[in-house]
Amino acid sequence: MQDHITPRRVVILGGGFAGLFAARALRRSPVAVTVVDRRAHHLFQPLLYQCASGILSEGQIAQPLRDVLRRHHNVRCVLAEATDVDVEARLVQLRRPDGRAMELPYDDLIVGVGMRQSYFGHDEFAAHAPGMKTLNDALEIRRRIYQAFEMAETAAGARERRQWLTFALVGGGPTGVELAGQIREIAVHTLEREFRTIDSADARVLLFEGSDDVLGAFGRPLAERAARTLRGLGVELHLGTRVTDIDAHGLTVRHKDGAVTRYEARTVLWTAGVEAPPVATALARATGATQDRAGRIAVEPDLTLPGHPEIRVTGDVMSLNKLPGLAEVAMQSGAYAGRAVRHAVEGRTRKPKPFKYVDLGSAAYISRGRAVLKTGPLHLSGFLGWLAWLFIHVAFLTGFRSRLGAVLSWSVAFATNARRERAFAVPDAPAPAEPAPEQKAPSPSA
Amino acid sequence: MQDHITPRRVVILGGGFAGLFAARALRRSPVAVTVVDRRAHHLFQPLLYQCASGILSEGQIAQPLRDVLRRHHNVRCVLAEATDVDVEARLVQLRRPDGRAMELPYDDLIVGVGMRQSYFGHDEFAAHAPGMKTLNDALEIRRRIYQAFEMAETAAGARERRQWLTFALVGGGPTGVELAGQIREIAVHTLEREFRTIDSADARVLLFEGSDDVLGAFGRPLAERAARTLRGLGVELHLGTRVTDIDAHGLTVRHKDGAVTRYEARTVLWTAGVEAPPVATALARATGATQDRAGRIAVEPDLTLPGHPEIRVTGDVMSLNKLPGLAEVAMQSGAYAGRAVRHAVEGRTRKPKPFKYVDLGSAAYISRGRAVLKTGPLHLSGFLGWLAWLFIHVAFLTGFRSRLGAVLSWSVAFATNARRERAFAVPDAPAPAEPAPEQKAPSPSA
Repeated sequence: MQDHITPRRVVILGGGFAGLFAARALRRSPVAVTVVDRRAHHLFQPLLYQCASGILSEGQIAQPLRDVLRRHHNVRCVLAEATDVDVEARLVQLRRPDGRAMELPYDDLIVGVGMRQSYFGHDEFAAHAPGMKTLNDALEIRRRIYQAFEMAETAAGARERRQWLTFALVGGGPTGVELAGQIREIAVHTLEREFRTIDSADARVLLFEGSDDVLGAFGRPLAERAARTLRGLGVELHLGTRVTDIDAHGLTVRHKDGAVTRYEARTVLWTAGVEAPPVATALARATGATQDRAGRIAVEPDLTLPGHPEIRVTGDVMSLNKLPGLAEVAMQSGAYAGRAVRHAVEGRTRKPKPFKYVDLGSAAYISRGRAVLKTGPLHLSGFLGWLAWLFIHVAFLTGFRSRLGAVLSWSVAFATNARRERAFAVPDAPAPAEPAPEQKAPSPSA
Repeated sequence: MQDHITPRRVVILGGGFAGLFAARALRRSPVAVTVVDRRAHHLFQPLLYQCASGILSEGQIAQPLRDVLRRHHNVRCVLAEATDVDVEARLVQLRRPDGRAMELPYDDLIVGVGMRQSYFGHDEFAAHAPGMKTLNDALEIRRRIYQAFEMAETAAGARERRQWLTFALVGGGPTGVELAGQIREIAVHTLEREFRTIDSADARVLLFEGSDDVLGAFGRPLAERAARTLRGLGVELHLGTRVTDIDAHGLTVRHKDGAVTRYEARTVLWTAGVEAPPVATALARATGATQDRAGRIAVEPDLTLPGHPEIRVTGDVMSLNKLPGLAEVAMQSGAYAGRAVRHAVEGRTRKPKPFKYVDLGSAAYISRGRAVLKTGPLHLSGFLGWLAWLFIHVAFLTGFRSRLGAVLSWSVAFATNARRERAFAVPDAPAPAEPAPEQKAPSPSA
């Protein structure tokens, strides 16, 4: 029994770029919006690697959703994970962090739940090779990077030391490339003169990529320039390789020609693949929508699901014309979905124009003063690319405070090589189950 | 067989204030210093509560030890936990984060391992009431504070909502008082207008203290002024109470008159007691030194252990003339121990003067614009106390960058009530083992 005074209920799943832009498009509509996310913050994912590498703090790249949406009086935020959708009853099933189940009724559903890290069926890799999708991931990677140098300093012998000073990155997309550049910068500049037993600049960074290019999505010319820049930084590129095994001491890869090589490395980071979260599969099952291999949901040209004009899928988890998983696609599709609901509320009956993505370009940071950027016919690399990268990221950082803080942190980092956010929490050491081999510490340098 | 060219080996256990000041005092001595800490950073503990409450980031209160000591060319840093001391062979036993054992020989040993949170024999409280000694503790408390408001927003009913909006703090020392003030500030100012179902300002903060005063160490007049200020902020003081039980939904306390009361609160934070880490007990056993009830090691007037002039104990873990566990005591005793070693190296044979603590005063922050401060005969409270607090903390913050960043963060926080570092990582929800009671979400406010 719905009272006709009750405003139309719009549920937005996900507080990423898609969800935020959908909520913003509905700001002045007489609807009741609920934004559901399993994190309490909006994460500026394009800068997550800078949090991992110790340039930015969590608060500089993650802003509370309710702070972002504080002045949107028709929006409430719910901290919970969407687990299922009852499309007949129009109910979303949620689970709060304490495990309690909740239901949320909707008249319109906008799905922008994003994608998760995927290990291509090898979930056992995750323990040895953390992914790079969440704030937790970034803090874990920060700890592993800086702790590896600490362990190298007190290593028992040359082999163990080499293992700790070898960093393997799986995946040659923007995140992998950015992390590779960061680790070499940390090794050569940030940690300069801090160690006594090791030379941190000896750190090797190996980047493994299945295709023949890093940053393949940017096209050959830029990809080749990026590869040159990475090699110049000292990153060793292993293109055309597939990882077949990872353990605590290294990884095994198969080359295109079938040769198999084992690389010893105590730090392995994974940025190779993504997959849709379980609720996307639940939704596809409930509606009969098709999913691509990674689980993205195929949508109609107006982003709705076949037979369900009340459900729209946006952002990374949307499959439409092979659009890439970029922040820009998420923003535009989220805003489109929000506008579509607004138009329906306003009683516009004309069939909406299909969603059309306007490619504003993409950019990847490689190292201090070097980036590649593609926008339409314009290809930039090196210092010009970097200036453009800087401008774009400052412009899109959510919230004035984050923006100011990030610019200040960058100024310090670029000017002095110092990274402010290097602190990491060391988990308690495991109690020695077996008698550990004792080791004479190398004598201190005088 | 010690080669006489080998410099004298000074091992410093702990990179807190005591350890750092000892290392600094040895900067120009021809000795080989090794600083051992189970964290890679020096933590500015007096501001830890500001990290927990979302004003400062980890990097603003924790600086890598090797960064702090980068220009001390006779110092190396080792990331490991000291587990035991072989005083005959003059060897420290260490355990690295990966569990591997190490040994470190010393000619002089300076112990500044600090104190840990103690639950007075009730270690089972820890799961429900995190302490406030490490960076991890601060991040966990940050998560619990902000997540409690999130859970209140989607609570199933009035009782659960009240429980989530009730915060219990055990311990009325500076940390407990500072956290109590912070939570009320967050509730009333920071979260203003962010919630739709609850009024965050309804949050109750209960402060439990065993003695008759909060901040008893500051003396009666300041303690009473602090109590008035706290009550003015809306903190409910429960003095003369002992906590007898804590669980996930609240705590039970016994009053002085024997009455027992149960308080419902989903967030309980513990700052009540400290105890010495295991290595302190190991050292006391090996040397025959006596420990006080909390495990502090009794030292001679020159900070050495009886019969062991090569071992000095400094900082919080030192028991001497009932000196309090303050940063200032740690700095002065650490510097004294470092100087004593330097004088011995320089061949000075005169018996050193006993350690004498110069009380420069102590300060506690209560809320924006309010603090208490005691230095000699001078007692300050309110705005003047706060100005003095500000000056002292800026002056002592390690490192210029931290200092500048903290001042900027404070300016923003004090001027706008906004807190930049509110992001927290939500652990994955437990899979519902038993069918959880379903809950209709409260309808969104339009």
